[in-house]
Amino acid sequence: MVKVNIISVGDELLIGQVINSNASYLGELLTAEGFDVEKIVTIGDDRDQLIKQLNESVNSSDLVIITGGLGPTHDDITKNVLVDFTEDSLILNTEILENVRKFFEVRNIKMPEINIGQAEVPSKAKIIWNSKGTAPGLWLEKEECVIISLPGVPYEMKNMMEKYVIDMLRNKYKNKFTDFYLSKTILTTGIGESLLSEMLGNINELILDSKLAFLPSAYGVRLRIGVTASDLRLAEEKINTITKRILNIIEPYVYGFGNISLEEVVMNLFIKHKKTLSVAESCTGGLISNRITNVSGSSKYFLGSINSYSNQSKINILGVNSSTIEKFGAVSKETALEMAKNVRKLFKSDIAVSTTGIAGPLGGSTEKPIGLTYIGYSDSEESFAEKFTFGSDREINKIRASQAALNILRKKLNRF
Amino acid sequence: MVKVNIISVGDELLIGQVINSNASYLGELLTAEGFDVEKIVTIGDDRDQLIKQLNESVNSSDLVIITGGLGPTHDDITKNVLVDFTEDSLILNTEILENVRKFFEVRNIKMPEINIGQAEVPSKAKIIWNSKGTAPGLWLEKEECVIISLPGVPYEMKNMMEKYVIDMLRNKYKNKFTDFYLSKTILTTGIGESLLSEMLGNINELILDSKLAFLPSAYGVRLRIGVTASDLRLAEEKINTITKRILNIIEPYVYGFGNISLEEVVMNLFIKHKKTLSVAESCTGGLISNRITNVSGSSKYFLGSINSYSNQSKINILGVNSSTIEKFGAVSKETALEMAKNVRKLFKSDIAVSTTGIAGPLGGSTEKPIGLTYIGYSDSEESFAEKFTFGSDREINKIRASQAALNILRKKLNRF
Repeated sequence: MVKVNIISVGDELLIGQVINSNASYLGELLTAEGFDVEKIVTIGDDRDQLIKQLNESVNSSDLVIITGGLGPTHDDITKNVLVDFTEDSLILNTEILENVRKFFEVRNIKMPEINIGQAEVPSKAKIIWNSKGTAPGLWLEKEECVIISLPGVPYEMKNMMEKYVIDMLRNKYKNKFTDFYLSKTILTTGIGESLLSEMLGNINELILDSKLAFLPSAYGVRLRIGVTASDLRLAEEKINTITKRILNIIEPYVYGFGNISLEEVVMNLFIKHKKTLSVAESCTGGLISNRITNVSGSSKYFLGSINSYSNQSKINILGVNSSTIEKFGAVSKETALEMAKNVRKLFKSDIAVSTTGIAGPLGGSTEKPIGLTYIGYSDSEESFAEKFTFGSDREINKIRASQAALNILRKKLNRF
Repeated sequence: MVKVNIISVGDELLIGQVINSNASYLGELLTAEGFDVEKIVTIGDDRDQLIKQLNESVNSSDLVIITGGLGPTHDDITKNVLVDFTEDSLILNTEILENVRKFFEVRNIKMPEINIGQAEVPSKAKIIWNSKGTAPGLWLEKEECVIISLPGVPYEMKNMMEKYVIDMLRNKYKNKFTDFYLSKTILTTGIGESLLSEMLGNINELILDSKLAFLPSAYGVRLRIGVTASDLRLAEEKINTITKRILNIIEPYVYGFGNISLEEVVMNLFIKHKKTLSVAESCTGGLISNRITNVSGSSKYFLGSINSYSNQSKINILGVNSSTIEKFGAVSKETALEMAKNVRKLFKSDIAVSTTGIAGPLGGSTEKPIGLTYIGYSDSEESFAEKFTFGSDREINKIRASQAALNILRKKLNRF
């Protein structure tokens, strides 16, 4: 495996003003190419820290990618540090200077003098062309280790990676890749991390020499399988075998693979089965509709929703019987059921779901604790309501209730 | 200065599956408290790497915060590594076990055996209570360095930081801070970063030797003022002077300070003025209601909403005239106005807002481009609709439209 260290340079990353999405991008891209990203280090605009980190990274990895610190101002230190670190000197590259001049020319701005420095590069460096900005990228080598320096501006960096660096890396390391790495993510909902783990039993027997990671969130637990093999076909076979084994045990909880959202899965099913949907929300307060309408194309099946946040609106607008609310309460199986049935009629949709519950943090009682939620479902053949018991956090309860409602839709639509 | 290293543990961070927002959060919070975050290191679920990094960080910093690797499954290594690193042993903490049991009990799930391990903690550790999950946080000390271990699940980690860790840190380091650092964030909406900057003029004259950062997002631009002074009173005076100067210039765009959300500001105004609200959504698809109901207490003023995602539901449920839609289109001033007026009558609320627009990425035309949005307003005295032109991204358009609608409510309520 080719070991990689990513070094992100910039005070703004340390003080949390900017989230380090560059490192995630590089991690994903390099992993997909078969590299082994071992470490990501973020440091400030600090000469000593960068030299220290370069020493460590060059000793412990085969490839170091630095982003940031290549701009023209006083706090941009990367290029000068690299010149010292590789015992090189700067030379003026006239082709780059021409490029920098043009950059300002097309923007009708006189080039500030400070930008001449952008065209000075280490004499031994290979230049990585930057068509979206003024700072060129650098490819240096020291003690068998490749050091690549790229700007921190995300669209400049990504453009350079995809246009030049990936090909340069493939070429450099073409004989190094004895192993192929593949990963696959299984998306589950409606079951916790530890229960899933218990159901799967002895993980090592299940996945043999591969890796399985549990990634829990309020939306559910993602399971990421990672395999390595001597060729791509073998890796694919391995990952398919493990996926099958896992699905054999936990399939009812699986709603998809990769990065798809449950609302996308649900939309695809509605469109495939040519059905329409309406929603009556209470404790989810609009979250289900919001998630549904985040997906482009949702207007093809989603007719709309009523968010009846008061008892009066449940009665006056949704037409829930006031006696139902009096007798069983607004948070009850009976109310959820009427909400689903009635919203379906109002919107003339094929299918409807509803939610009513106590989102918290206030409003709970011994009989009806915070987190108690009923989800109603109605179509032309059947109507029912299910009880759920979530936790004590308002926003998480909303997410879990919306996820449970979408999951009921998924399961029902899979039946058609 | 108290030097801080943040160590983020998890393969998912290295391969780019999850963006390291935890580190940004910690960086921002700790910087605001006056700590000096020197380095953020991300490593995988790898015992040797974590031990190596702990050795390095303990030698070079005063405080190490580790997030991740505290779950109950096989790939969670942090706790065991810390036990070895501090030459300690695990003991069962019955209070935590009780908490873990309860966590499953309220969810009506039998606690999986694997979770007993969550209640085992290093004997010398101070425990940091986790009210949102099963993994307790740990406070350890080694060679004058404090090591804090927290779960990687963002809402668990943040809750623990804000509820316990910050106070523990303030107490531990109270004699270490010679300079007082204070920051204040001014929240604006409805104006872009470069226009704000232009209005403010010469920034250095405005803020003297202090710092001013522009933090733009779809919700608006936050302005963060940062001052240092030899005592707290001086720092407060400085920050108040700068705040006043800035407000003198841009006050109409300012909706609050710090971390308050616009939906909280709006709720406070509605409750203060004893008014009720209903909403008719179309292009925002439930987002306005969702944001409103994320705030605990919103049921005091928010009666509900109708999300009319189809023309038929605009006509049948909201009672918009079909001739209005035929003549002016669903995305028009006239439709927005009728939506607001009608939803107000349906819910019998004091005030109503409505949205209709083209969220994109499909559905635009030369006449009505993607991003075109009308927002309607209605109360007992006046009704109107405003036109907005947002961009081409669906989710950002939804956010900007919801923000514009809430901002209209804020401005109108400030009038009472």
